[in-house]
Amino acid sequence: MPALEKVSIIGSGNWGSAIAKIIGSNAARHTDQFDLTVRQWVFEETVDGQNLTDIINTKHENVKYLKGIALPHNVVAIPDVVKACEGATLLVFVVPHQFIHGICEKMKGHLAPNARAISLIKGLEITADGTRIFSEEISRTLDIPCAALSGANIANEVALEKFCESTIGCTNLEDGLIFKRLFDTPYFRIAVVQDYVGVQLCGALKNVVAVGAGFSDGLGYGSNTKAAIIRLGLMEMRKFGQTFFGDAVQTETFFESCGAADLITTCNGGRNRKVAEAFVLTGKPLDVLEAELLNGQKLQGTLTAQEVNQFLTARNMTHEFPLFSTVYRIAYEGVSPEMITVDI
Amino acid sequence: MPALEKVSIIGSGNWGSAIAKIIGSNAARHTDQFDLTVRQWVFEETVDGQNLTDIINTKHENVKYLKGIALPHNVVAIPDVVKACEGATLLVFVVPHQFIHGICEKMKGHLAPNARAISLIKGLEITADGTRIFSEEISRTLDIPCAALSGANIANEVALEKFCESTIGCTNLEDGLIFKRLFDTPYFRIAVVQDYVGVQLCGALKNVVAVGAGFSDGLGYGSNTKAAIIRLGLMEMRKFGQTFFGDAVQTETFFESCGAADLITTCNGGRNRKVAEAFVLTGKPLDVLEAELLNGQKLQGTLTAQEVNQFLTARNMTHEFPLFSTVYRIAYEGVSPEMITVDI
Repeated sequence: MPALEKVSIIGSGNWGSAIAKIIGSNAARHTDQFDLTVRQWVFEETVDGQNLTDIINTKHENVKYLKGIALPHNVVAIPDVVKACEGATLLVFVVPHQFIHGICEKMKGHLAPNARAISLIKGLEITADGTRIFSEEISRTLDIPCAALSGANIANEVALEKFCESTIGCTNLEDGLIFKRLFDTPYFRIAVVQDYVGVQLCGALKNVVAVGAGFSDGLGYGSNTKAAIIRLGLMEMRKFGQTFFGDAVQTETFFESCGAADLITTCNGGRNRKVAEAFVLTGKPLDVLEAELLNGQKLQGTLTAQEVNQFLTARNMTHEFPLFSTVYRIAYEGVSPEMITVDI
Repeated sequence: MPALEKVSIIGSGNWGSAIAKIIGSNAARHTDQFDLTVRQWVFEETVDGQNLTDIINTKHENVKYLKGIALPHNVVAIPDVVKACEGATLLVFVVPHQFIHGICEKMKGHLAPNARAISLIKGLEITADGTRIFSEEISRTLDIPCAALSGANIANEVALEKFCESTIGCTNLEDGLIFKRLFDTPYFRIAVVQDYVGVQLCGALKNVVAVGAGFSDGLGYGSNTKAAIIRLGLMEMRKFGQTFFGDAVQTETFFESCGAADLITTCNGGRNRKVAEAFVLTGKPLDVLEAELLNGQKLQGTLTAQEVNQFLTARNMTHEFPLFSTVYRIAYEGVSPEMITVDI
């Protein structure tokens, strides 16, 4: 009988807490495969004079980031990242991407020899020089394989056990099935594909499309137009993947939850759509609307549109991606929002 | 120089009138290819004591079915179907499907020898015995090739020149490009594929998915869940096509406007979604809600769900299409709406 997998979750925000609920209960359900104890690295904070880790370990609730949701008792919060991952065989990364590098450096040398990771970090970074795929960065820094998970998964809805799906991209299908067993529940249904690049690409580029959909909403265009923008966006997402990553990026990925489904949710709700709509309706600059509407958060979609534009400009290929380019030009170059249906 | 194409539109309802506006202006724009005069067969009615054809030909507006929209002056309304199609080389069918057979019988022997048709009739009929694809019925009855057009195209939005896309399915790509020239405008963008079956299949099966999306809305499930239902529905639509029509039905068709885009629009707005939502919220029977909400129209999605169920039952394959089957069982067999996320 093979040794049990020792799972560590790295991160404890809203999404990290929702996923800890799932992982904890699956570890308890599949004791043939997973060690019952699931460690979770929690960035220590003080809440009402108490350590957040102590609250989680006694009250079994992350009162700061996922209030009102009971966490399984076998999820143990640990404030020290080395203690949280010592000897781990399965690592689940769910931290803001700017912390990846520092955390991985601390973890080096403390993992089990056969450790594998999965990244739940949304999206990727794009610069004029190239792309930075977070699962690859984790893999490189820790010298272990790293998969990715992404889908139409609003954390609060997942925590409330509303039915949804998610996609795991994992080159090694055997590992993919272990991760599937770790995440899959009747209300959180997992599909495994090998295309981990496509899975992460969708999570980034969908936000650019959502900005375009928001412009259309702001202009009062109907649902035909919005559906056309969503469809054209899905096609540009695929073209971007297949142009710059070749056959690694598969058409089927765009039919998965990480593709079509996440794009639909993001274009119907979501802050990118909302701010873009307000941009057209009020004529206010984006940074003003960000401050007014997003409570200190940055608008991901316009940032990604800018990154994609730099990437494409460096390759003289903006004309090949008319939707991405038009979203950028409306957001940053004073082009009229009406161009969203003319230049694409 | 080849002879000019003589275009006849068969039908003059809401969608027929919106499309007559496009065809009329394209015939006037491409005089190298199309005869300027576009004939339209209009079922004669009396409106305020005047013949509808006379009103269209003098006022250039279909005051009954597309009020407020100016029609091009080169569109000529004709109440006699034989006169409307005599010598035509391109026929555009846009009539309720129950009239196809009778109309085609009257047209026999009056068309040009090289005549080709295109069907804008939505959907298809499914029975326990098999499927009835309207373009094939036209083709068989008139012994001419027949293509199909379908997309995320709400007639009133198209008439107002709101940007959208549509898909032409045409086995012969040369004919497909002629039809593209007849329909394509900057605000009504056409893509041509060869898979005319997939194009028509999407137009029927999307309504079943929209009923499922409406159940989810009625249950107050979130946007994750609805996106998952839409995605799973798209996958069942494709599986249905590829199982029963083989390689004729292509994966790419489901990425076109007739596939993903039309499905998104239908699941976000549309009467199928609305009545299904009310079914959950009120607990009233479907026929009562139809009468209350649809102003005499029949609910297409539940009807198609029933047809699909008979078709699948005859082949012992309902379990292979859990979403379609669950929609049917909720609508007709008293199964609880909550099963929409359990049995799929």
